[in-house]
Amino acid sequence: MKKIVVALGGNALQEAGKPATAEAQLEVVEKTAEHIADIIGEGYEVVVAHGNGPQVGRLVLQNEYANDITPAMPFDVCGAMSQGMIGYHIQQGLSKVLRHRGSKAQVATVVTQVVVDQNDPKFQNPSKPIGPFYKEDEARAIAAEKGYVMKEDAGRGWRRVVASPVPVEIVELDAVKCLVDNGFVVVSVGGGGIPVIRKENGDLEGTAAVIDKDLASEKLAEDLNADALVILTAVEKVSINYNKPDQKDLSTLTVAEAKQYMAEGHFAPGSMLPKIEAAVKFVESKPGRRSIITSLDKAVEALEGKAGTTIA
Amino acid sequence: MKKIVVALGGNALQEAGKPATAEAQLEVVEKTAEHIADIIGEGYEVVVAHGNGPQVGRLVLQNEYANDITPAMPFDVCGAMSQGMIGYHIQQGLSKVLRHRGSKAQVATVVTQVVVDQNDPKFQNPSKPIGPFYKEDEARAIAAEKGYVMKEDAGRGWRRVVASPVPVEIVELDAVKCLVDNGFVVVSVGGGGIPVIRKENGDLEGTAAVIDKDLASEKLAEDLNADALVILTAVEKVSINYNKPDQKDLSTLTVAEAKQYMAEGHFAPGSMLPKIEAAVKFVESKPGRRSIITSLDKAVEALEGKAGTTIA
Repeated sequence: MKKIVVALGGNALQEAGKPATAEAQLEVVEKTAEHIADIIGEGYEVVVAHGNGPQVGRLVLQNEYANDITPAMPFDVCGAMSQGMIGYHIQQGLSKVLRHRGSKAQVATVVTQVVVDQNDPKFQNPSKPIGPFYKEDEARAIAAEKGYVMKEDAGRGWRRVVASPVPVEIVELDAVKCLVDNGFVVVSVGGGGIPVIRKENGDLEGTAAVIDKDLASEKLAEDLNADALVILTAVEKVSINYNKPDQKDLSTLTVAEAKQYMAEGHFAPGSMLPKIEAAVKFVESKPGRRSIITSLDKAVEALEGKAGTTIA
Repeated sequence: MKKIVVALGGNALQEAGKPATAEAQLEVVEKTAEHIADIIGEGYEVVVAHGNGPQVGRLVLQNEYANDITPAMPFDVCGAMSQGMIGYHIQQGLSKVLRHRGSKAQVATVVTQVVVDQNDPKFQNPSKPIGPFYKEDEARAIAAEKGYVMKEDAGRGWRRVVASPVPVEIVELDAVKCLVDNGFVVVSVGGGGIPVIRKENGDLEGTAAVIDKDLASEKLAEDLNADALVILTAVEKVSINYNKPDQKDLSTLTVAEAKQYMAEGHFAPGSMLPKIEAAVKFVESKPGRRSIITSLDKAVEALEGKAGTTIA
């Protein structure tokens, strides 16, 4: 049976512009679950990874806002909470869809820590904004008090920024592997994983960082010896000259082409670029591996090579 | 190898009176981890269950407080978040202690839903207070708007109350079993489990309820065919005439004695009573099963029959 890691983008968990209520989120997750169930129905062993940007952002907001009445949890703990929340919704929604289809597949979420290197150069240049906006004087006071790096965000105010280091180790990999090997649909590395560093004595410690969920999914796919990495996003295909008159949608992409297009700046940082990076990394990790970038509703067709963009 | 479910009480996760920061919580969890590692070191297969009262209470507080800027999550989702948070801390702290001792045991948290019966009579008489205190007029407005049951709480104000129905099914049991059977130390049914009901069509749906963590631990112990249920709390032994001049600490307790003492009102509801109920239920579920109620630091001795209270 072919094993694949499916990385869900933000649009798979929440509809942009809709109120971020639990009901609205669950509704979107149930729609997403139909597409994942389609993939499972084709006979694939599926491991689900997902982002958590908006969700963890709201958690940070709630935590900071209520800090006078109860201490705000640090960013790694908010990440852990978001895994509990999103994992719960995915396992409930996906189990429901699977059961309606007569499948006996079971879904389980493993709370997952992902190690990053404390010497990762990205820590020298934190760039991922998280949490609420502040006025400049507030921002400076927070920076002085807590040691946070605060940056001005496109005229909208000041925000805390954290690093986005690369994932180097999935701590709960063996637990994920055990469940996958025994037929479970596993939800893991939510939000790219709870960011931790490994200290010199080997102990893990939470850190404030945003691990790119596509890179974490890639790492998971490699470590699970998956056949394909499927990155689901809002567009059906990867394009060059995106949003320009000469936009060209790509059905297939070799590693060499992908690297050339990256070098030429075709892909937006923080959006398509990390997906292409992750896709290329997975293909390069072992002969025969392929990556697919497509939209949720095209996933099954894309796995058959009839839609989306295949990087191989 | 003997399999045991260890139910951690509130004191195992947080020190009363200390600020509820992540650092303080992690410190307590690491101390707790030493005791769990002691048990594992004696050769037991350990499954960890835990409460979440103060933690989920703070989550509800944060959610309600920040409701004007981002929608408050319902109680089941807060439960899921607390499982992510506490599970993360336990797996990080316990893994650290185990590794320092040369153990290769791995720890994993499974996000766990627990089904309650929507016809459970407890739903008719909700009694578990959760979340913030309100003034009477605020409370009445909330009751009218959201359909919550609000009650006056011992002169301190009005609070929402929810039911505490009995656990009837652990949804992710097979995943927990799979990991336990493969040597993992599993954290499950955090906070008694995420409360869900099973609708007539079989679908699960989150509900606002507090499932007693000792009863959920008992259910888990039964379903995993554990040899012992170990309920860890703040006192070393169960007592009758507790806090009276004729207090008598009990080293052993038969089911018949336990039932008699319960009938005589020796055990405080919401405190020792549910522990005794869970302990008795487990012992009665199959010949040869025993329950232990003791403090964290006496757990190993209690398993040898040298401390704590054994119910058998």
